[in-house]
Amino acid sequence: MADLTHFDGKGDAHMVDVSDKPATARVAVAEGYVQMAPETLTQITEGRAKKGDVLGVARLAGIMGAKKTADLIPLCHPLPITKVAVELTADPALPGIRIEATVKTAGQTGVEMEALTAVSTTALTLYDMVKAVEKSMTIGGIRLVLKDGGKSGRYEAPK
Amino acid sequence: MADLTHFDGKGDAHMVDVSDKPATARVAVAEGYVQMAPETLTQITEGRAKKGDVLGVARLAGIMGAKKTADLIPLCHPLPITKVAVELTADPALPGIRIEATVKTAGQTGVEMEALTAVSTTALTLYDMVKAVEKSMTIGGIRLVLKDGGKSGRYEAPK
Amino acid sequence: MADLTHFDGKGDAHMVDVSDKPATARVAVAEGYVQMAPETLTQITEGRAKKGDVLGVARLAGIMGAKKTADLIPLCHPLPITKVAVELTADPALPGIRIEATVKTAGQTGVEMEALTAVSTTALTLYDMVKAVEKSMTIGGIRLVLKDGGKSGRYEAPK
Amino acid sequence: MADLTHFDGKGDAHMVDVSDKPATARVAVAEGYVQMAPETLTQITEGRAKKGDVLGVARLAGIMGAKKTADLIPLCHPLPITKVAVELTADPALPGIRIEATVKTAGQTGVEMEALTAVSTTALTLYDMVKAVEKSMTIGGIRLVLKDGGKSGRYEAPK
Amino acid sequence: MADLTHFDGKGDAHMVDVSDKPATARVAVAEGYVQMAPETLTQITEGRAKKGDVLGVARLAGIMGAKKTADLIPLCHPLPITKVAVELTADPALPGIRIEATVKTAGQTGVEMEALTAVSTTALTLYDMVKAVEKSMTIGGIRLVLKDGGKSGRYEAPK
Amino acid sequence: MADLTHFDGKGDAHMVDVSDKPATARVAVAEGYVQMAPETLTQITEGRAKKGDVLGVARLAGIMGAKKTADLIPLCHPLPITKVAVELTADPALPGIRIEATVKTAGQTGVEMEALTAVSTTALTLYDMVKAVEKSMTIGGIRLVLKDGGKSGRYEAPK
Repeated sequence: MADLTHFDGKGDAHMVDVSDKPATARVAVAEGYVQMAPETLTQITEGRAKKGDVLGVARLAGIMGAKKTADLIPLCHPLPITKVAVELTADPALPGIRIEATVKTAGQTGVEMEALTAVSTTALTLYDMVKAVEKSMTIGGIRLVLKDGGKSGRYEAPK
Repeated sequence: MADLTHFDGKGDAHMVDVSDKPATARVAVAEGYVQMAPETLTQITEGRAKKGDVLGVARLAGIMGAKKTADLIPLCHPLPITKVAVELTADPALPGIRIEATVKTAGQTGVEMEALTAVSTTALTLYDMVKAVEKSMTIGGIRLVLKDGGKSGRYEAPK
Repeated sequence: MADLTHFDGKGDAHMVDVSDKPATARVAVAEGYVQMAPETLTQITEGRAKKGDVLGVARLAGIMGAKKTADLIPLCHPLPITKVAVELTADPALPGIRIEATVKTAGQTGVEMEALTAVSTTALTLYDMVKAVEKSMTIGGIRLVLKDGGKSGRYEAPK
Repeated sequence: MADLTHFDGKGDAHMVDVSDKPATARVAVAEGYVQMAPETLTQITEGRAKKGDVLGVARLAGIMGAKKTADLIPLCHPLPITKVAVELTADPALPGIRIEATVKTAGQTGVEMEALTAVSTTALTLYDMVKAVEKSMTIGGIRLVLKDGGKSGRYEAPK
Repeated sequence: MADLTHFDGKGDAHMVDVSDKPATARVAVAEGYVQMAPETLTQITEGRAKKGDVLGVARLAGIMGAKKTADLIPLCHPLPITKVAVELTADPALPGIRIEATVKTAGQTGVEMEALTAVSTTALTLYDMVKAVEKSMTIGGIRLVLKDGGKSGRYEAPK
Repeated sequence: MADLTHFDGKGDAHMVDVSDKPATARVAVAEGYVQMAPETLTQITEGRAKKGDVLGVARLAGIMGAKKTADLIPLCHPLPITKVAVELTADPALPGIRIEATVKTAGQTGVEMEALTAVSTTALTLYDMVKAVEKSMTIGGIRLVLKDGGKSGRYEAPK
């Protein structure tokens, strides 16, 4: 089984040395959702035109969140992100909003944490904007969908 | 049904005016979890003594994350937090780690977002530290458990 | 004539001591504009519905910018902002976008810098989003319109 | 006419994908000014030696502001800046202080926003330091003077 | 002997609950120094007029550093600072620069860490600006000189 | 004697132009200590197992501090750090805790400031966590131990 790389031989946390890894093209996709009452979802989707663009604000927060990843996650390397996109989709069957974030870089480590942080920040912002209507929303299903580039190669989550 | 308070009459996003609300004692508790393979959980819990304190690092990240809430969530008011505690519990039945964060302030708005951000940041940091071992972990169940103080009164999530 | 308060008797910069000032309700309003070619303005205003909400993104950046004021302006006191609103209006006579920001707090110093920073950040973000279309836009007219609360009293800019 | 690149085909904001652009040497120069009463200008320029170095503080704030660009402008890529210089010149004909900022990088996108943010932050800091003397100062004329490097080539503002 | 307050009964780190402490006037003074070769000190002090104001830049960095304390020190409470002053004095007997920082607030916890962080950041910035001349400078003597306000009362360091 | 590189010909501070320097592998090691009463040291070292991991929290703060260097030190270039490690050792002869930080990057400037900032932040966090037990601790001996890479070559501090 693999080791916990964020600790050295003595068990002390460190930021892993990636100095000798080449800078390669990397991409990561993460997903998650905010589950809510059907009426809450209706209020978000119908409001988009007239009453306020909840999804637009949450998307922007997610994009900015990706840029704060190394500030939030203690042992994450700072990385020059080259692309962030966040998709929000209303899913009446959930019911709720599904979130998918795609992040790219040309760097020495992957951008999994950036994609997951984008999804988390989008979900938290959604919660914040809608909490006056419903406090019982749940954020869940946050996971890595795809990762490519770098020595450890491609990872695709099982469907 | 309540309105989306983060938008004005024209549908434009704004930071809600709380100038006339009194500063009162407020508390919020949020929870969530990181689900993983049983072997991954074992590696975290057994490693605590010898190989590296994953839970200690994640807890600290969660506490610091609570302080960054107004930086991450666009329409959140900055608040002088007076307490943050993050509990991490291994749950072999999940299997995974359960997270609970408690935040207090004496302020003009609640600290729900601070508690939820603490849980999210703790979960993301856990993922980061363990991802070399398992990439398929899922973050979920992030929700508000308790909120008290302020005009809107007490909220307790259904069990 | 008044003195430059941000320097002590020796001419050294310091953050002014406001410890003995009472925390009172304060408000500040600032304004500014981004001037552009008429076709650029048309592209922004017509695009709002279909092609992308430039004004919505810029407004959000301005609100978040207000929260970063003490981080940007070296001798500014950190303040718990209680309200931020940013209005953007297309003005075909300019031609361009007019920006007005209103900030409130209950604090020991005023929020003039927060309102001016909100206007500046909104203007910079507008520029960023539209620069692929026109690089010759100019940001100008950034000034304090109104300030109230605190010992120095009310200030209103001449029309 | 060019398109608004910060939105995708559906009109949703995103951070543009620059992954496939080569990292090339880039430079940008921006300018702006703070206009004030002649007595205010005199107080700044004469005070430099004895009463406090307003221009020195503002210059430093501008340099630090350039480093915060990707934090302030939502869809800006983070960039490893390789040079920032900010020039402040007293102009009795304005009357006021003229600001010029030069920023360089070797990166995949330009540094126009960094140069404009440096000018803006310098101007805001000047305002902050002098506002006890004059509240009616105006910040204006903020525009891109020069941009070079990258696929879109050289841009020089008309005089 | 007193306990380590930053850990709970189980030994887990937390941000101490200060919710029930009254907000009182608090002050802290800290000191430190940067020791260097006599020629290096001469270059700093003589250069002040003509070649560049090393001490002015370092002082400003110290003031801004005080505002970042809660961002740097994981278990520190965020506090609305009401005053920061940093004094720098050339001491040919050291030889080097002596630094003293004074910080005030009206809050629920003390500002010792803010004063110590101001001194540290000032010293690091001094080092940065002079390192092209001398790399062997040493930062030392950083300690709390005075603390007053709050339940634990006044502390004065022995001379 | 060398010049103060952080000022231009007129004596104005600037961020030095490193655009034409190649990105090379660089390393820096810095050290420092926190001196305290012998009983305080005992409380830290014995508490590690049962009462709270002071050294683990301080180490993590130091690692995160290294990532904030360009935010704290005004004229520092932002750099993509590729490794940070912080060692803490109890030294009963001091008595106190010795700190050593190692930072690596592949960049156009060195990482001396990053290593020194890591040591400083570790020391400040140690102070914060133990100050309820002893306020008279002193932080000292912060200096550069080793620097390698880049045009100016290798530097090793005298023992």
